[in-house]
Order: sequence, then C-alpha cells, then structure tokens
Amino acid sequence: MELPSVFLRYRSNIDAEIRAVFADLHSPMYDMLRYHLGWINEDGKPFSNNGGKAVRSTLCMLSNEAIAGNCERALPAAAALELLHNFSLIHDDIQDNDRERRNRPTVWAIYGKPQAINAGTLMRVLASLAMMRLAQRNVTVEKQLKAIRILDETCLQLIEGQYLDLSYEDQSDVSISDYLRMIKLKTVALIGCSLELGAFLATEDESTIQRFRKCGEYLGFAFQIKDDLLGIWGNQDKIGKPVGSDIRQKKKTFPLLYAWENASPGSKSKLDEIYQSTLINENLQAEVLSILDSVQAKTHTQSTVADYCSKAMTSLDEIELTPVTHELFAEVIDFLAYRNH
Amino acid sequence: MELPSVFLRYRSNIDAEIRAVFADLHSPMYDMLRYHLGWINEDGKPFSNNGGKAVRSTLCMLSNEAIAGNCERALPAAAALELLHNFSLIHDDIQDNDRERRNRPTVWAIYGKPQAINAGTLMRVLASLAMMRLAQRNVTVEKQLKAIRILDETCLQLIEGQYLDLSYEDQSDVSISDYLRMIKLKTVALIGCSLELGAFLATEDESTIQRFRKCGEYLGFAFQIKDDLLGIWGNQDKIGKPVGSDIRQKKKTFPLLYAWENASPGSKSKLDEIYQSTLINENLQAEVLSILDSVQAKTHTQSTVADYCSKAMTSLDEIELTPVTHELFAEVIDFLAYRNH
Repeated sequence: MELPSVFLRYRSNIDAEIRAVFADLHSPMYDMLRYHLGWINEDGKPFSNNGGKAVRSTLCMLSNEAIAGNCERALPAAAALELLHNFSLIHDDIQDNDRERRNRPTVWAIYGKPQAINAGTLMRVLASLAMMRLAQRNVTVEKQLKAIRILDETCLQLIEGQYLDLSYEDQSDVSISDYLRMIKLKTVALIGCSLELGAFLATEDESTIQRFRKCGEYLGFAFQIKDDLLGIWGNQDKIGKPVGSDIRQKKKTFPLLYAWENASPGSKSKLDEIYQSTLINENLQAEVLSILDSVQAKTHTQSTVADYCSKAMTSLDEIELTPVTHELFAEVIDFLAYRNH
Repeated sequence: MELPSVFLRYRSNIDAEIRAVFADLHSPMYDMLRYHLGWINEDGKPFSNNGGKAVRSTLCMLSNEAIAGNCERALPAAAALELLHNFSLIHDDIQDNDRERRNRPTVWAIYGKPQAINAGTLMRVLASLAMMRLAQRNVTVEKQLKAIRILDETCLQLIEGQYLDLSYEDQSDVSISDYLRMIKLKTVALIGCSLELGAFLATEDESTIQRFRKCGEYLGFAFQIKDDLLGIWGNQDKIGKPVGSDIRQKKKTFPLLYAWENASPGSKSKLDEIYQSTLINENLQAEVLSILDSVQAKTHTQSTVADYCSKAMTSLDEIELTPVTHELFAEVIDFLAYRNH
C-alpha cells in the first residue's frame, strides 16, 4: 500500500521548511536530530528515508488549504507539529527501551540515553522556534503568540499521555476507558491540534476551527487504534519494528484490553497469568493471539477504527469543502482506516 | 553564611508567580515537579525547603528594578528562568546518575528515569507558559514574542552545554579553554539571559540591555567556577551533595583542569593514571586533593572567581544605578564570589 497522493502534495514544502529551521545549527549535537529525521546516517553521511508519514503536518496543511485555498502560511506550524511529534518519539524510545524505529536503530541506541534525552528536548525547543517563523508569513503577532500557546498546551497533554501510558505498565486493571483517556492525551490531542492550527491560520471563525479540531480528534483515535492493530498483526517490513513486539512488551493496547474485557473467564485468567509472567516467549505469544482470535479482537478493532473515521468525515459535513479538498480529506481518512503500515 | 537580603527581596513574589503557573495543573504528574521544587515531599505532603537560591530569577528582577524602579513586570520572566533552570537540573540528574540534590533524593531516584524524563520536559514547557503571563503585565505582544524567543535560544545553548559536558566525560584531553566554552553554554548563557531579560522588559535601549547581559555573563563564569570549587572543597550539609563527589565522579571541573595544565610532569602522569582507573576510592581522592594543593588550585580558582566578579561589577559602570540598586548588585556579586553554599 503506497502512501496516497495527499501525503505527497505538501511533502517537499514541509521538508524544506523543517530543513530551514536547521539551517544555522552547526553543532555536531544537531546531527542526532538529523539522524532521527532520516537525513543522515550514523556516520554523518547523507541518507534519505524521508522519516515517517508526516501525518500531522499533512493534516495541518490540508485544513489550511481547505479554508484558505493555499497553505503557504501554515508551513511553520506544520514544521512545528512534525518536530513536536519527533521529540516525543525520541523520548518514548528511551522510556520504552525500544532499539528500533522505522527499520533503523533509535537515537539512544546509537548515542546513548543521556545524549538522547538532550536530542529529544532540543527537538522540542526547535518546534517552538519553527513556529516563530510564522512572523515571515504575514501572520499577526497576536496569532503567532496564540499558535505558540496552542502548541505548548498540546505538549503538556502529550506528555501527560506518555505519563499515563508508563503508569499503566505497572497497573493490572487498566480498562478500555482508561486507555481511551490515555490516547486522548498522547495521540489525539496532537492530531486534533494539527487540523486546528491549519484552520486557525486560515480563518477567524471559531466554529469552523472547532469542527476541524473535532475531525482531527476522531482521526487521532482512529490513528492510534489502527497503530495498535498493526502493532500486533502488522507486517514487520512495513511498520519498521518487530511484529508481536507489543505483545512481548506487554503493552496494554486496544485489542488486548478488548479481549480482557470480553474473553471467557478461563481465557481471562490465562491472560492474567501470561501478563504476570516475567517473559512472554513465542509460545505464550501464540496463546495470546489465540485468545484475541477467540473474541474476534482484530475485527472489532478494525471496525472501531472505521467508526472513528466515519465520524471524522461527518464532522466536516457543515463545512463547504471544494471538490478537491473533499477528495483529499476522503483519501487521508480512508488511508488512516485501511493502511497496513 | 546566610543568603544576603537581595535574595529575600523578591522571593515571595517569585514564588507566588511560579505557583500561579501551577494553579490549574491537577494531574498527579505535576507532583513530580512540585516535589522537585520543594513544595511537597514524596508522599505528597506539604513540605518547604524553598528549593534553591533562585539566583537567576533574582538577577532578572534586580536588573528590571535597576532600570524601571519597580519590577512587577519582570515576574513572568523571572518565573520562566527559574523553571527553565529546574528543567535542566532534573534532566542533568538523570544523565549524571545523581541520586541526591539539595539534601533530598532526586526526581528520578523516586519516580524512575522514564517518568523523570517527562518531569524535566514538562518543566521546560511550563517555562514557556510562565513567560506567556507577560500578557497580564502590560508588555507589548512584540516584546512577549521576543522574550519567548530569547528564552528558547538560551535553552538551545544550555542543552548544547550539557551535550559538551557529557562528551567531555569520554575525552581525555579537555583543556581549560574547552571547559570555558562548555560552561559559557551550560551556565553562563542562562545567567546572562536573566539580567538581559530583566533589562529588556524595562527599557528599549539596546546598549543598556547589552551591558546587563555582559554583567550577567561574567557572573555566570564566576558562579560556575565557584560551584566547581565547592564541588571539591565545600561543606556537604551546606551544598546538599556529598563532598568530593566531583572527584569521585571524575568531573573535569576548573580546579582539576588547572592542576592538569600546571602540575609537575610526575603529578600529571599520576592524575592521568587515577582518572583512567575504573574507580576513585578514598585513597586516590586524597592523592588528587594533594596534587590540587601542590599547584594551589583552590587559591587560583578563588581568585579567578573574584576576577570575574570584579569584571561583572565594572561592566555596570556606565549605567546610572540608584544607591539602593548599586548596593544590591554589590551584595549579590560579593555573595557569588565568597559564598560557601
């Protein structure tokens, strides 16, 4: 499954904007960030894997274009969102002890955890400095300040989500509603913020901005729950990390919590027992998969994703989209629902 | 040695301003920050050790008062500086594996490293949000934006300083000039920024702002080098961490680098040998101290501190200070030169 065209539509402009943020940063320290972004390899030689899908920046550009007809003005915000997302990836990998992302060693696996902590925080500060480039795009000072505040407040939510996610590791009774509260902070807030900021930089109409935000929140739920599905049943080459790793790492993701709440008493005790054992080996992993099958966890997870995606599309009903932007939204929403990577 | 009165002059206002930033933050996650700031103990019960000396916020208030005659307007910046400084302490403690600060367990020693990474980054974001409270102090939007940018750019320097400091751990040939470059980023930039921001919020006159900044930079060098002195010869109860820990942790601080560059060839080889050994025990620590004594490293370090302090005072010569603010500056500079904690 190729990336749909909407992800290519803004790609080179977003990439150029992010690179412009790095233009005057010459300390070798910034090579850790360039490495993470897929611009160089660990020897400092040029490399190009284009980083991730750039979902957040693409959504920001799209809502801006949908209202303003062009989306140059949203570029600094799009870059800031991408950098903020990447800050969280660098720190998450340290916190989760993950050695691999996008089929490459993670930043800490190369530079060590102490320096990777610096790399993550730097990326966070560069997100703010990226946003300051709104000054060059004919955005009022008031709007610049408000955009910075929106990003900072979203960042508090994102960290609170990560805080809860880590807390859940030691907690045996996590419910689906606990989980939804956690992803609302960890993933949904930033994706909501992406569509919100794009709209905010194109219009003064608060109700339009809030409709895009709402659409982004539904998409955020869809995105994370689909991620959970791929974390169990995805293809290693495509998702860039070992398959089944979510099970071996005992992550309390949506399909597992669904099984926990819906499995037979016998299967539930078995799950309890497996998740209390020190190590989940291949046999235990197969048992978990079989319990997930017994409650059709994969089907249920996919239909939950589809529901959120359909709500996301509906929340734009009141907004007059041009045929082109309507098609682009349909494309991105369809991709998020049915992607396999 | 008590804190001089200038540190008490703004204390309650700064404290109230920082607490106001936390007013609406109710997630238990923020308790990690409250713990670090000395407001609660690890059980969540009220506690009060008043955190550190609040050097940076005090300097910011002082330069603001020196120009404006009152310094209410600088409070959000003072709070932001203090929070930024505390972000760096939380992450430094993780990176250096330090279990104790201000006579209490560090944040990571209580909450674990993954959550402490979150705590540090949160503190960093709260620094930005603290700065946004300038909007309530009759500061123009342009100045608000500029102040946020100054803080962010200082933060990049601060992290680069920490990056270099960590790099020096594995480097055997660190010179005093490498060291000065590192502390210029890690410590000096933020202390320079403190006096700069206070002045910036009181005047439009760029040369006055730059004189305060310069004064702050000299003070920053004095402050860090004095810290290095106390890290070897300070009193444990007063400085809040085990004495000699800088030697046992093989930190390449000013007195040690001075000895390295000035000791006899025999002593230098001995130092090389000691710093290449896996562990510096009490006997080796005593040998290091005796080599430091042989080149009068303590006296030289103290006189370097005094030189920087005197340059700091001189750099304010061109500025017309009231007798009161002149006295306050003299007091703070004298304290930084001769403090024992």
